[in-house]
Amino acid sequence: MIVVNFKACVESLGKKGLTLAKICEKVAQESKKEIVVCPQTPDLCLVSKEVSIPVFSQHIDPVDPGSRTGHITLESVRSYATGTLINHSEKRMKIADIEYLVKKCRNFGLTSIVCTNNIEVSMACSLLTPDYIAIEPPELIGGDISVTSASPEIVEDSVKKIKKINPRVKVLCGAGVKTGKDVKKALELGTEGVLLASGVVKAEDPEKALRDLVSGI
Amino acid sequence: MIVVNFKACVESLGKKGLTLAKICEKVAQESKKEIVVCPQTPDLCLVSKEVSIPVFSQHIDPVDPGSRTGHITLESVRSYATGTLINHSEKRMKIADIEYLVKKCRNFGLTSIVCTNNIEVSMACSLLTPDYIAIEPPELIGGDISVTSASPEIVEDSVKKIKKINPRVKVLCGAGVKTGKDVKKALELGTEGVLLASGVVKAEDPEKALRDLVSGI
Amino acid sequence: MIVVNFKACVESLGKKGLTLAKICEKVAQESKKEIVVCPQTPDLCLVSKEVSIPVFSQHIDPVDPGSRTGHITLESVRSYATGTLINHSEKRMKIADIEYLVKKCRNFGLTSIVCTNNIEVSMACSLLTPDYIAIEPPELIGGDISVTSASPEIVEDSVKKIKKINPRVKVLCGAGVKTGKDVKKALELGTEGVLLASGVVKAEDPEKALRDLVSGI
Amino acid sequence: MIVVNFKACVESLGKKGLTLAKICEKVAQESKKEIVVCPQTPDLCLVSKEVSIPVFSQHIDPVDPGSRTGHITLESVRSYATGTLINHSEKRMKIADIEYLVKKCRNFGLTSIVCTNNIEVSMACSLLTPDYIAIEPPELIGGDISVTSASPEIVEDSVKKIKKINPRVKVLCGAGVKTGKDVKKALELGTEGVLLASGVVKAEDPEKALRDLVSGI
Repeated sequence: MIVVNFKACVESLGKKGLTLAKICEKVAQESKKEIVVCPQTPDLCLVSKEVSIPVFSQHIDPVDPGSRTGHITLESVRSYATGTLINHSEKRMKIADIEYLVKKCRNFGLTSIVCTNNIEVSMACSLLTPDYIAIEPPELIGGDISVTSASPEIVEDSVKKIKKINPRVKVLCGAGVKTGKDVKKALELGTEGVLLASGVVKAEDPEKALRDLVSGI
Repeated sequence: MIVVNFKACVESLGKKGLTLAKICEKVAQESKKEIVVCPQTPDLCLVSKEVSIPVFSQHIDPVDPGSRTGHITLESVRSYATGTLINHSEKRMKIADIEYLVKKCRNFGLTSIVCTNNIEVSMACSLLTPDYIAIEPPELIGGDISVTSASPEIVEDSVKKIKKINPRVKVLCGAGVKTGKDVKKALELGTEGVLLASGVVKAEDPEKALRDLVSGI
Repeated sequence: MIVVNFKACVESLGKKGLTLAKICEKVAQESKKEIVVCPQTPDLCLVSKEVSIPVFSQHIDPVDPGSRTGHITLESVRSYATGTLINHSEKRMKIADIEYLVKKCRNFGLTSIVCTNNIEVSMACSLLTPDYIAIEPPELIGGDISVTSASPEIVEDSVKKIKKINPRVKVLCGAGVKTGKDVKKALELGTEGVLLASGVVKAEDPEKALRDLVSGI
Repeated sequence: MIVVNFKACVESLGKKGLTLAKICEKVAQESKKEIVVCPQTPDLCLVSKEVSIPVFSQHIDPVDPGSRTGHITLESVRSYATGTLINHSEKRMKIADIEYLVKKCRNFGLTSIVCTNNIEVSMACSLLTPDYIAIEPPELIGGDISVTSASPEIVEDSVKKIKKINPRVKVLCGAGVKTGKDVKKALELGTEGVLLASGVVKAEDPEKALRDLVSGI
C-alpha cells in the first residue's frame, strides 16, 4: 500500500488536489496496486466524489459532535473518507486522544494509521491496535536520506518489535522513501507499505514519480 | 445579516447540513434578507456548490500552506468559502494569530468575523479592523436568557465603544438571540446583525425558526 | 507509597503548602511509611529546603533548556525535586512528549510517575518503562466512589496487564482513594501505593486524614 | 527600567540564576537604576528571598486556583514575584487569556508586561491597559541587529500609537538591545525601558554587560 499525504501544500490545493488524486487513481488502476490519497480536509468531499481509490483524512479532532465550532469530527469526515492519519509529526496528539480515536475508528469502520517518531512510541501505540503504525524516524523525515541507504535497521527493528507486541498491527515506512527502490527495500524490511508526501506532491512529474514508486511493490 | 453557525452538530452533518443550508437559502431568497451559513469544514465544498447564499468557514488555522498536515489553511478554505469566523468561543486563538488571520482575510478578500467574550477584548480586537466583531457575552451564551430581556446595556455599550475606536468595524450580536423579537432588539441596540447556532440548527422546524428570525430585520 | 498531589489549591499555596508538607513529613516519620509530596511549582524550592521526605514536581514541560521563556524544564526542577508526575489528567501530554520525559527522567535519575486514564493507555505507557504508572479511571476521579466499593476489577485488571507487559513498572492507584481502608484494598489489588490529592489537601484535618491513610499500609 | 528575562537557559538555572540576580542587584544599587529580574519559575522563591530588587515571573497560566495540577497560578507566583511577563514570544497566549491576566494582575497589585509582535497587536493590547507593553518586532528578535542601527521608526511609531490609544500604558523596547547605546536610543525613541535576555544571560561577563546597559539610562 502506498499512502500519499497531500499535506497543506499549494501543489495539492483544490483543483490541483483533484488532479493529483486522479493521477494516483490512474496509476493505481494500471498497476493494480493499492494507492490511498489524503487530500486537504476542505477538499475531502471534492476528491472523494471523483475518484474510486480510498480517500483518507489527514487528521481528526478527538471530540464528539456537538458545540465544537471549527473542530473536525470523525462523524463529519466519514461522509467522504474511509480512514485517517492520526498523530502525524505535524499534528502530534495526546496519548489519551490517540487511544480515543483508534477505538472510535474501529467502531465506525474507518482505517486508522497512527504515525510514530521512534521505536518506544511505536511499541506503545501498537498496543492500542490501530490498523497501521507509520514509523517516521526523525533522522529520515524531510531529508534526502533514504531508508535504503541509511538506518535500515531502525525500520527492521521497529517492525519486529511492533509485530512481537501486537501481530495484528501492520507497519508502514513513513519517511525516507523517494523511489521504487526505497519502496522495495521498505517491503523487504517487513513493512506492508509506505506513507509519503513530497516525493509525489512536490514532484515535477507526479505520475512518473508514482509509476516509479509502484514499480517497487 | 444573520449568520448561522452549524457547529459540529449531528443535525448539521453532511446531507443534513446541505438540507439546512438549502432552507437558509430559501428563506433568504423569499425574505430578501442576507443569511450566511457556516457549515462543518469537510462539508464546505458540498454546501458551497449547492447554494447561492454566502458560505463562511467556522475556523482557519493561522498557518501558511506547506508541510502542515491536518491544518486548515485560508488558501484551502477559499475555494469554497468567502468568509470565516475567527476566535469563536469554542476555538479561542492567540492575539498574534487573530491579527495574522484578519490581515490575511483582508489580503485575500475574505470577510472576517472575530468573536469576542467581553467589552475589553471587543475593543482590543476592533483595532485589528476585522469586518465584523461578534460579541458573545458569556452571560448569554448557550442559555435561555435573551438579549431582549437581559443585559441589553452590554450590547449597546459594546457597540458604542467599538464604533468609537474603529467606526469601520460592524458589530454582530453573538449570543442570546432566539427569536425575531431578539433580532429586532439587537438591531435597535446598534448591531448590524446576529450570529447564532442552536436557535436554528437544533430547532424542531429550522425553516419556521429562520422565518421568525428574519421577521425581526 | 503515598503520593500527595497538592494541585493548585488555595489550601496548598505558599506557607500553607509548607505546613501541609511538614504534616506529611511528620506522619511519614512516625509511621515509617513513604510519603511523597508534590507542591505547586513555585513552592518546590521552599518545600524541598524544609522537609526531608521526597518532593516531586506536578509537571515538567517537554523541552530542553534555552530560549523557552515560561517553560518548566526538568533541569530547573531537579534542583528541588527528585521525581515528577507526567500526563496528569489535568495536564495531558502528547505520546512523543511522555516518551521524551520518561527517558529524560531516567537519564537524570528522577522518578517518573505517568498518569493514565484507562487500561489501553496504561498498557501503552507501561512500554515506555516509567518507574510508576498511576491509573486514574475516569469513573473514580474526583467523586465519592471509592475503589473499595466500586470497580475493584478495573484496578486489578490494569495491574495484571501492566505487569504482564512490563514487570518493572510499579502501579499506583490514582483515584477513588479516601481512607486507610481504600489504601489497604488498593494494595491487595496489586498496586504499590496510591496517588491522591483532595483527600488530604482539602481535609479538615489533614494530619488525621494521613494517619488514617497510612494505617492501610 | 531594565527587565532581565532569565529564560530557561542553563546559564540562569538554580544557583547560577541566584548569582545572576545578585549581579543585577549590585549593578542596580550602585547605579541607582531600576533593574527587574525574571528567574525561571522554580527559582522564584530562591531568588526573591535573596535579592531586594523586583522579581517578576516569566509567565502565569490563565487559571484560578483549584484542580489544576501542574499549572502556574497568579496566586502561587505572588508569594515570590511582584509582576509578570505575559504573552512572551516563546509563550504566546489567547486574547481572552491576556485580558483575564492583565485584569487579575491589576486586582492583585502585580505589575503586568504584555509582550507584542507588531504595531497592530501592540495597539490592541494597549486597550487592555497593562502596566507595560514590551514591543518585540520579529525583525529584531534574537539577531545581531540593534534598534539603534535598524528600524528605529518601528519603535517610535509603536510608542506614538500606543500612547495615543492609551496614555497610561508604558512601553518597553523588547528586542534589538545589546548595549548602553541601544538603551539610550530606545529611551530617546519614547520607551520607558528595555526587556532583554541573552545580552545579559549569555554574556561572558554579565556584570560588565549590565554596567554598559545602565550607562545608557
